[in-house]
Amino acid sequence: MAKNVAHKLIASHLVSGDMEVGKEIGLKIDQTLTQDATGTMVMLELEAMGLDQVKTEASAQYVDHNLIQEDYRNADDHLFLRSAAQKFGVYYSRPGNGVSHPVHMQRLAKPGKTLLGSDSHTCANGCMGMLAIGAGGIDVAMAMAGEAYHVKMPKVMGIKLIGKLPDWVSAKDVILEMLRRHSVKGGVGKILEYYGPGLESLSAMDRHVIANMGAELGATSTVFPSDHIIKDFLTQQGREEDWIELKADYGATYDEEDEIDLSTLVPLIAKPSSPDKVVPVSEIAGEPIYQSYIGSSANPGYRDFAIAAEIVKDKQITPGVSLDINPTSRQLLEQLVKDGYIAQLIGAGARMHQAGCNGCIGMGQAPATDRNSLRTTPRNFPGRSGTREDSVFLCSPETAAASALHGVITDPRTLEMDYPLIKEPTEFPDAGMLEAPPNSYDKISLEKGPNITSIPDFAPIENNFEVPILLKMGDNISTDEILAGGSRVLPYRSNIQRISTFAFEIVDDTYYERAMKARDDHGHAIIAGINYGQGSSREHAALAPRYLGLKVVLVKDFARIHLQNLINFGILPLRFANKEDYKKIEKGSILQFQNVHDSLKKLEKINVRIKDTDEMIEVEHDLTKRHIELILQGGVINWIKYKKV
Amino acid sequence: MAKNVAHKLIASHLVSGDMEVGKEIGLKIDQTLTQDATGTMVMLELEAMGLDQVKTEASAQYVDHNLIQEDYRNADDHLFLRSAAQKFGVYYSRPGNGVSHPVHMQRLAKPGKTLLGSDSHTCANGCMGMLAIGAGGIDVAMAMAGEAYHVKMPKVMGIKLIGKLPDWVSAKDVILEMLRRHSVKGGVGKILEYYGPGLESLSAMDRHVIANMGAELGATSTVFPSDHIIKDFLTQQGREEDWIELKADYGATYDEEDEIDLSTLVPLIAKPSSPDKVVPVSEIAGEPIYQSYIGSSANPGYRDFAIAAEIVKDKQITPGVSLDINPTSRQLLEQLVKDGYIAQLIGAGARMHQAGCNGCIGMGQAPATDRNSLRTTPRNFPGRSGTREDSVFLCSPETAAASALHGVITDPRTLEMDYPLIKEPTEFPDAGMLEAPPNSYDKISLEKGPNITSIPDFAPIENNFEVPILLKMGDNISTDEILAGGSRVLPYRSNIQRISTFAFEIVDDTYYERAMKARDDHGHAIIAGINYGQGSSREHAALAPRYLGLKVVLVKDFARIHLQNLINFGILPLRFANKEDYKKIEKGSILQFQNVHDSLKKLEKINVRIKDTDEMIEVEHDLTKRHIELILQGGVINWIKYKKV
Repeated sequence: MAKNVAHKLIASHLVSGDMEVGKEIGLKIDQTLTQDATGTMVMLELEAMGLDQVKTEASAQYVDHNLIQEDYRNADDHLFLRSAAQKFGVYYSRPGNGVSHPVHMQRLAKPGKTLLGSDSHTCANGCMGMLAIGAGGIDVAMAMAGEAYHVKMPKVMGIKLIGKLPDWVSAKDVILEMLRRHSVKGGVGKILEYYGPGLESLSAMDRHVIANMGAELGATSTVFPSDHIIKDFLTQQGREEDWIELKADYGATYDEEDEIDLSTLVPLIAKPSSPDKVVPVSEIAGEPIYQSYIGSSANPGYRDFAIAAEIVKDKQITPGVSLDINPTSRQLLEQLVKDGYIAQLIGAGARMHQAGCNGCIGMGQAPATDRNSLRTTPRNFPGRSGTREDSVFLCSPETAAASALHGVITDPRTLEMDYPLIKEPTEFPDAGMLEAPPNSYDKISLEKGPNITSIPDFAPIENNFEVPILLKMGDNISTDEILAGGSRVLPYRSNIQRISTFAFEIVDDTYYERAMKARDDHGHAIIAGINYGQGSSREHAALAPRYLGLKVVLVKDFARIHLQNLINFGILPLRFANKEDYKKIEKGSILQFQNVHDSLKKLEKINVRIKDTDEMIEVEHDLTKRHIELILQGGVINWIKYKKV
Repeated sequence: MAKNVAHKLIASHLVSGDMEVGKEIGLKIDQTLTQDATGTMVMLELEAMGLDQVKTEASAQYVDHNLIQEDYRNADDHLFLRSAAQKFGVYYSRPGNGVSHPVHMQRLAKPGKTLLGSDSHTCANGCMGMLAIGAGGIDVAMAMAGEAYHVKMPKVMGIKLIGKLPDWVSAKDVILEMLRRHSVKGGVGKILEYYGPGLESLSAMDRHVIANMGAELGATSTVFPSDHIIKDFLTQQGREEDWIELKADYGATYDEEDEIDLSTLVPLIAKPSSPDKVVPVSEIAGEPIYQSYIGSSANPGYRDFAIAAEIVKDKQITPGVSLDINPTSRQLLEQLVKDGYIAQLIGAGARMHQAGCNGCIGMGQAPATDRNSLRTTPRNFPGRSGTREDSVFLCSPETAAASALHGVITDPRTLEMDYPLIKEPTEFPDAGMLEAPPNSYDKISLEKGPNITSIPDFAPIENNFEVPILLKMGDNISTDEILAGGSRVLPYRSNIQRISTFAFEIVDDTYYERAMKARDDHGHAIIAGINYGQGSSREHAALAPRYLGLKVVLVKDFARIHLQNLINFGILPLRFANKEDYKKIEKGSILQFQNVHDSLKKLEKINVRIKDTDEMIEVEHDLTKRHIELILQGGVINWIKYKKV
């Protein structure tokens, strides 16, 4: 049967399951990508697993998120990540090398391969004919340890591109058009696959722009074919040998279809505060702006900066406007400097920043109160810029540069100049962007600053045990209530012992102390109502209570991602078979469990005795055999450690 | 009589007093410089004074300190400062234009003029044949309003420079030699004047390096003559017409003398954690480093970056070392980009940052725990880098670059290469570095974000009044106890109402509430022991209690700078004539004052009645007639407002 690119990539990496939409499949992972914000915990997980060396073809650790070193902590993280990269055999990209996605594309991406990354925009490398998926940290840690990645088989939506973009319209307008059509939920459960004659006029970096913001459609991933344009890109990088052709078979079909005639597109802009609030720039032209921001993985290319430089060349931006230039990689920065574009930008009044994520993730560059910020970044959710009630618009570099010149939102087609032609360099400098792991790993030890601690050992759940209920909670408890985010808590993301002091603080500030007491005894359990664990995907919301001795979470039902996190860290997630039983248990009750292992293995309900009332209740679960195997080992970390031995 | 340069500058600007060492003199101020950290309050003071337009020849507002925009506050400050600059007729240097001192030198400095700046390194512009002095914000505000600046007539130390610097030794080593000889206290009460044949080989920017770090010797200022080298510098800037010659008269003498034979100097380095812990680099060569930092107003010149670029050209810095490049002005950055030096640095692995103060003032770039940081910055006091127990060394760009290459502290003379010759450009781009004030000021209104509020009106002290004692404190109360610094409090530096909630919080956390209550009545007084107000010079420690209704501070004695701040903001600073009387007054006592105005004007002691015990005590003060005039107006702001009418 004629296959599309997505199906080819999946089929060639399928290690379990059938390619039936909605069913779980297991995929072999060839490459991984971690950034510093998520990577420190991934490396601590690898340490706890006792991993010698990663099993992937290539794994890379990037430092791009936490570049502002206000005290020792970020700097210590960088050194820790470098030592971990050396120890585990991972490429290390130092601070200043740029954003993970373009750097990975430039130096490591290979058509036909799979990439799993602990960053939601990992899908950007789908532009290279790869299957590139963003996932949680522990998933990536498992992939680094050689395990398959499990995901529900997605639908594939084929988007046929025809025609050619008009002058002043570029790749960003294509993905904004997709968001306009399909909304931020339009990609959920799907891979977006682009094909058709329109691809001829889209460079590899243009495709990166489109693949990157597939994340904003909620898509599992985005794929492009690997054609002669990808070959040219790899040749530019001195990596021609990494190219293979990968195209959809003639007659390939898709689960869903769409078509964009590129020649009909106009400059588009997403209004505050959602990437799908898309309108033509002309519709809101004239609105004053405070900031114009060029960069991020959603517009990382050479042309994205060069075209802005050509637009402002020999002119001055409007006084009072901040034109923030955020180079996306050291390589691009060096080449843009050599080719004179950076001098043009500085000469026009731009503010040059170091290569990295920077303001795209709220690390600096926050806009002033009640002022409009135009950004080429992927997201404009409220407050993401760092300013709580911000007003951020998403647009192309052409629109951003034109607007900086005029001080108001400007349709670049109204500029009185010819559309600049940008000639791509035939080659790029490497500039030592990635530090390759050493040949020998034996002598490398992890460099841990005072704020970085190892993940402690976690014992598996016993077959027979009794535990006190330390918390009885209601419905819709969020991960923010389980473990808050924010600047008070997150700096301890690499320090389980310390971060756990904040666990359930909002619910009951005596929890930490009581849990620590029960921990040395037999641990504890908690109960709650429906939708337990809604909200953020942060793993610490499972890891911190686990450290404090949490063994069983008994609720009416779970939010999906937190359930997965509980399983991953070996906490038994149970549901009341009869929801009315919730009333029978109080804070302070003791629950007695018998023959838990057998019941789990047989996928049977578990009988639990409430010690104080001597009543029996039935509890159930939705665990698969794979899940049960994980839990009986005490979680993913133990499972891998045990497997290794 | 033959005059030295310092005496010529003072004599030509003397408006009061005699040039007798230690006696107060008043100086006419031609130019002022404010940066953003101190500038917002200066602008609010100008607003409160009701100033229409500054009376100086040129005033400039720079934005170089608070460039990290983590939320709306810094961005709002930038917009506020821009609007204030336009309103009051001040040049505005936007974020990204660079550090105040080199930008001022490049665009505004003029030989023969005086410059007062609210930054301790204002003395850097002494390199231009100016008298440039760092001062408190309110002093600069007064100068902007056309008032004289008062200072004790300093001694002048003449430092004769002979010989020529050897290869690999540069201006930084000259000032480090001065610190080695004279320590961080060696310049107190002095102007350091450099002269002699050695000047021939020191460019204007080299002299800037030496003048800048006069602050580290504690000097009142540093001056250099204005010679043909300053003329060349101004010509490079397209400002030849601003040059005048200014040299010491033949036979001029100095209060103190020193001499440095430049040809005998070697590369020097200041060890942690004081700028005067100076040793030859060779003595500690081989120590591993984590960071090498090039930039700041203590090495701002074109050559400082170019020589580093030549040293690392076509090589790679040691992996794991962070080579942080902090351009000091947009102009220099643009030229260094054009001349290829920036590409060389990036190619070797340097991390490029935006033009500004950055890590020099602890805004990012903090070193990792227990790691050595080499910096070309002026100061290495403990914790200034942002990392509490840091290990910061001060050195030349040559030493910093050589050490980044080798990963250990390296004497640049040991590099196997010829000393690079750097050719200065014949001209520099302007790049719109300063926004000139508009011709008409009428329609400009101040743009105040939600965190910026006007300074409220302050009534002058009455002739007869009674006030309760809200605090009775012991000896050595510091300004940190009066109003803490730090990240919890300082963000409210432009919001008196908000920052005053922290006043005396450490001493008595009921103070704010009690003071607010008494404020609507008749205000209040406080008493304390010896050395009241020691520590930081921050004006808010006077301003915040003043807002809360503090009228009288009665102590055993005052720390000098805080006393001046109390006077400036119209609080009556009194001493017990008999220190034993301290015991007679309790928290809650009421003090009754009669005929205060007359007693002050007659410079008489004041009789105060303790209402609860009906006892009389005598209090005294050290106020001059000028001080009393200020206090009777309610402080400097009212004094200027009144004078204007």
